[in-house]
Amino acid sequence: MGIMGQAMAANLVKAGFEVSVWNRTAKKCEPLIKHGAHHGASPAEVVANCDITFAMISDPAAARELCFGTQGVLEGITPGKGYIDVSTVDPQTSVEIGLAINKKGGRFLEAPVSGSKKPAEDGVLVFLCAGDNFLYNEAMPALEVMGKKTFYLGEVAKGAQMKLVINMIMGTMMTAFGEGLSLGEKAGLNMSDIITVLDQGVIANQMFRLKGPMMAEGNFPTAFPLKHMQKDMRLALLMGNENGQSLFTAGAANASYIKAKNKGCDDDDFSAVLQVIKE
Amino acid sequence: MGIMGQAMAANLVKAGFEVSVWNRTAKKCEPLIKHGAHHGASPAEVVANCDITFAMISDPAAARELCFGTQGVLEGITPGKGYIDVSTVDPQTSVEIGLAINKKGGRFLEAPVSGSKKPAEDGVLVFLCAGDNFLYNEAMPALEVMGKKTFYLGEVAKGAQMKLVINMIMGTMMTAFGEGLSLGEKAGLNMSDIITVLDQGVIANQMFRLKGPMMAEGNFPTAFPLKHMQKDMRLALLMGNENGQSLFTAGAANASYIKAKNKGCDDDDFSAVLQVIKE
Amino acid sequence: MGIMGQAMAANLVKAGFEVSVWNRTAKKCEPLIKHGAHHGASPAEVVANCDITFAMISDPAAARELCFGTQGVLEGITPGKGYIDVSTVDPQTSVEIGLAINKKGGRFLEAPVSGSKKPAEDGVLVFLCAGDNFLYNEAMPALEVMGKKTFYLGEVAKGAQMKLVINMIMGTMMTAFGEGLSLGEKAGLNMSDIITVLDQGVIANQMFRLKGPMMAEGNFPTAFPLKHMQKDMRLALLMGNENGQSLFTAGAANASYIKAKNKGCDDDDFSAVLQVIKE
Amino acid sequence: MGIMGQAMAANLVKAGFEVSVWNRTAKKCEPLIKHGAHHGASPAEVVANCDITFAMISDPAAARELCFGTQGVLEGITPGKGYIDVSTVDPQTSVEIGLAINKKGGRFLEAPVSGSKKPAEDGVLVFLCAGDNFLYNEAMPALEVMGKKTFYLGEVAKGAQMKLVINMIMGTMMTAFGEGLSLGEKAGLNMSDIITVLDQGVIANQMFRLKGPMMAEGNFPTAFPLKHMQKDMRLALLMGNENGQSLFTAGAANASYIKAKNKGCDDDDFSAVLQVIKE
Repeated sequence: MGIMGQAMAANLVKAGFEVSVWNRTAKKCEPLIKHGAHHGASPAEVVANCDITFAMISDPAAARELCFGTQGVLEGITPGKGYIDVSTVDPQTSVEIGLAINKKGGRFLEAPVSGSKKPAEDGVLVFLCAGDNFLYNEAMPALEVMGKKTFYLGEVAKGAQMKLVINMIMGTMMTAFGEGLSLGEKAGLNMSDIITVLDQGVIANQMFRLKGPMMAEGNFPTAFPLKHMQKDMRLALLMGNENGQSLFTAGAANASYIKAKNKGCDDDDFSAVLQVIKE
Repeated sequence: MGIMGQAMAANLVKAGFEVSVWNRTAKKCEPLIKHGAHHGASPAEVVANCDITFAMISDPAAARELCFGTQGVLEGITPGKGYIDVSTVDPQTSVEIGLAINKKGGRFLEAPVSGSKKPAEDGVLVFLCAGDNFLYNEAMPALEVMGKKTFYLGEVAKGAQMKLVINMIMGTMMTAFGEGLSLGEKAGLNMSDIITVLDQGVIANQMFRLKGPMMAEGNFPTAFPLKHMQKDMRLALLMGNENGQSLFTAGAANASYIKAKNKGCDDDDFSAVLQVIKE
Repeated sequence: MGIMGQAMAANLVKAGFEVSVWNRTAKKCEPLIKHGAHHGASPAEVVANCDITFAMISDPAAARELCFGTQGVLEGITPGKGYIDVSTVDPQTSVEIGLAINKKGGRFLEAPVSGSKKPAEDGVLVFLCAGDNFLYNEAMPALEVMGKKTFYLGEVAKGAQMKLVINMIMGTMMTAFGEGLSLGEKAGLNMSDIITVLDQGVIANQMFRLKGPMMAEGNFPTAFPLKHMQKDMRLALLMGNENGQSLFTAGAANASYIKAKNKGCDDDDFSAVLQVIKE
Repeated sequence: MGIMGQAMAANLVKAGFEVSVWNRTAKKCEPLIKHGAHHGASPAEVVANCDITFAMISDPAAARELCFGTQGVLEGITPGKGYIDVSTVDPQTSVEIGLAINKKGGRFLEAPVSGSKKPAEDGVLVFLCAGDNFLYNEAMPALEVMGKKTFYLGEVAKGAQMKLVINMIMGTMMTAFGEGLSLGEKAGLNMSDIITVLDQGVIANQMFRLKGPMMAEGNFPTAFPLKHMQKDMRLALLMGNENGQSLFTAGAANASYIKAKNKGCDDDDFSAVLQVIKE
């Protein structure tokens, strides 16, 4: 029930699905309960109550804890239950969770999303699914409520890998954008002019268009937290090491996100990396 | 009369402007002459014949030679003549050329373009103008034929600087894209899936959409030559050194373009940098 | 009984210690057995036979297998046994092995070495020890035979961390050296002149002095395999991610080692990274 | 008569050479005049008074100004005069100065030095000479007083290039060292332990040994100013662009020096780059 989870669950409730929710700090569930969601006392209870359970958590460690912890997801799994992890985790974590669910007769789909706060609220996320193909089809009505497009990419891990690739490109584009804005400003150009010019060319994109003007004013309202971007960059670089892919630009971008974390930008939007680029 | 110059001049001829053309190798002028352009025997002669002369050449050295060389632009300049350099050069070169033109009573506008082969042909370039404001207004009818949008950014050098900032961002986005495509492929994803997923998200842009599918097939038909991108990256990095801007990701991207040049990709599209990223 | 293990064990045998050896492929133990070493049928048997067991393997996965595998080290541990891992592994692996040994009443010291083939043969390695302080003292006579200097750095993991820091600096120095040599050569200088000049200044060091002349001739006889350097760089970068340390130069160096591995230089000396730098 | 020039001239005076000195701010010449040096009213006058003139200035712009400016070196040059520039400039500047000196019948030797404050004071610099071979031989007695070793590398520019290669390696080694120290400290190691361990291995060198302990205490007394190191890194990267050499690690190092300059470390020792690495 973080930024993403609340918005996604709200859309399911609104669409008429019967929804049970659980969150580590129960208070965050209240708005949803007011709108008709049930409250599960534990992850295990939510799984026991539902045919299909969606999980949206922040990092691999939390994903494992949610699944393997006391009163966790795994304890609620019985044959036929569907578990869909829409978080961005590393491929290995995804595989381990999937195997554990399978061993208890459950079915597993990883379905990390592309899109942050606004698309989650608007129900236009993109789901990068991999794993159990039947579960994928069964969950489609719910996925269609929360998203505008779903992909089925093959065996478990492929969704996580796709997500990391996408976020790595996004994170590196952001530092490239930040370097350009800061270089221009130091040379006497207006950041807002740069943003306008960019928006006329072949690299015009929504991220520059939406975040750029706020960045120019030093505002970084959180759509996708910087600490999560840094985590994804780290996981993508790990994937590079494992697959023999040199990542010179992504590696440089990651180091800038680490510097931004040290500066205290963990919970700002990842566009706050501009602040360390300007230094 | 390279890729860009031919397309731009053709649009001027088509629109009914009286156009004189010159090119180092005269042969390249022939198609335009067939369609009604005059041929100038030298840059000086073109300038002498025309109220406003546009120059589109490939790098700072060529821009200086064109202006200061024997029978060059400067020899044709008389009071009131307008000279518009639409090439991408470094800010210092632009300032030196502008000063020399001014000293002879001429007027100077730098107007580097954003956009490559296709936008040049379609007359939808973006002009980043700086320098003589009256000349800017006088040239507007011609600029509107060749482009969809013009910016006036202030004193000479600002146009060159804006162009370098834009191209630096573009060049770094390309290596980020390439690293993502190659990482994904090595991990077992399809490049075409990655391109489709990217096109659903906030970083969807025309460059990824148009070049991506060709890159996935190992085709790099030249819209913007790699050697020119590397030159622009180099000039942007120089600008960073002069303005105290650290450029970690752009610096890494530049080094990849250098490697691609060594591999013989000078005249391929700059998306051919994917080939060295894959190694 | 790889490059390092053979040399270290040989020095122990020569010094009169009673030595038992084991290697996955038994054949590599033969030279030592000829000189008086016993042969253990398994890691567990070696541990059962000896008061103190040294392990020198190539990576974290192998270190875990050796310890936790069937007939592995752990099976031979009884209260009081000493186990010293002189391999370079990641801090976490070291901690897990140490804990497992402790739980069975054994004592654990991690003692990764600084130094490669030649120092191993000459008995002038440097041991970076951390863990059980009594075991450290008891093992001193053996450590003194194999090395010229030992450090005691505190609790388990500190030795592994120190080793990774040292190797990260070394690996990055090597790419800096390679970039300088290659840049000089392309500009018309002789690599051998560069090496001579370097040896006159404040950064003169044995690595440049010994490897440089061979690198200039395109020879990379293996003292420290490139694949192991890349592994250590990867682990150091992971440590950076975990400790909030941006590593811009080390990250760039690591990417060059990955490229070198792709080129097939896995088993060459890590100085072979020069080959990809030259491209 | 900066840090270097004063020390070098003092050694010449001490050795009994007849020395004339000039400095932009005359006051800095006083200590030398007290010890017997003559004072030249301008660079031209110094050249007129001396057979061989040495110049030690801070950057290419200053080197050009000294040579081509009013009352500059060039005005004093008559046939046979020797001019030796021991500064670190870019190869192109060196070539232009050499040509101008030659045109007036003078002889030119570039002889950038390897070594900073202490070696300058102790007369143990290393001279990287290129240009007029006869002048090289004639100047040898003076070079031997100021240095411990001289190299003759060929035509003008080769000395400048060699110097840039050496300093690029040194500058990158420093950021590698700084990254290692900072990573170690964040992980709980003592910087002084790291420095001690490094000094036992194959990469032990005087720079780490001398600067390391001061860096660990946050002291950066200036031997070689950070702003000059950044300038040399910039020139080396430019050389890389011109010679088709990718410089991934050196490029990352340069960006860190730019950040350090922005932080106000211009006049600190270049080891002060540690401060931005720690952030």
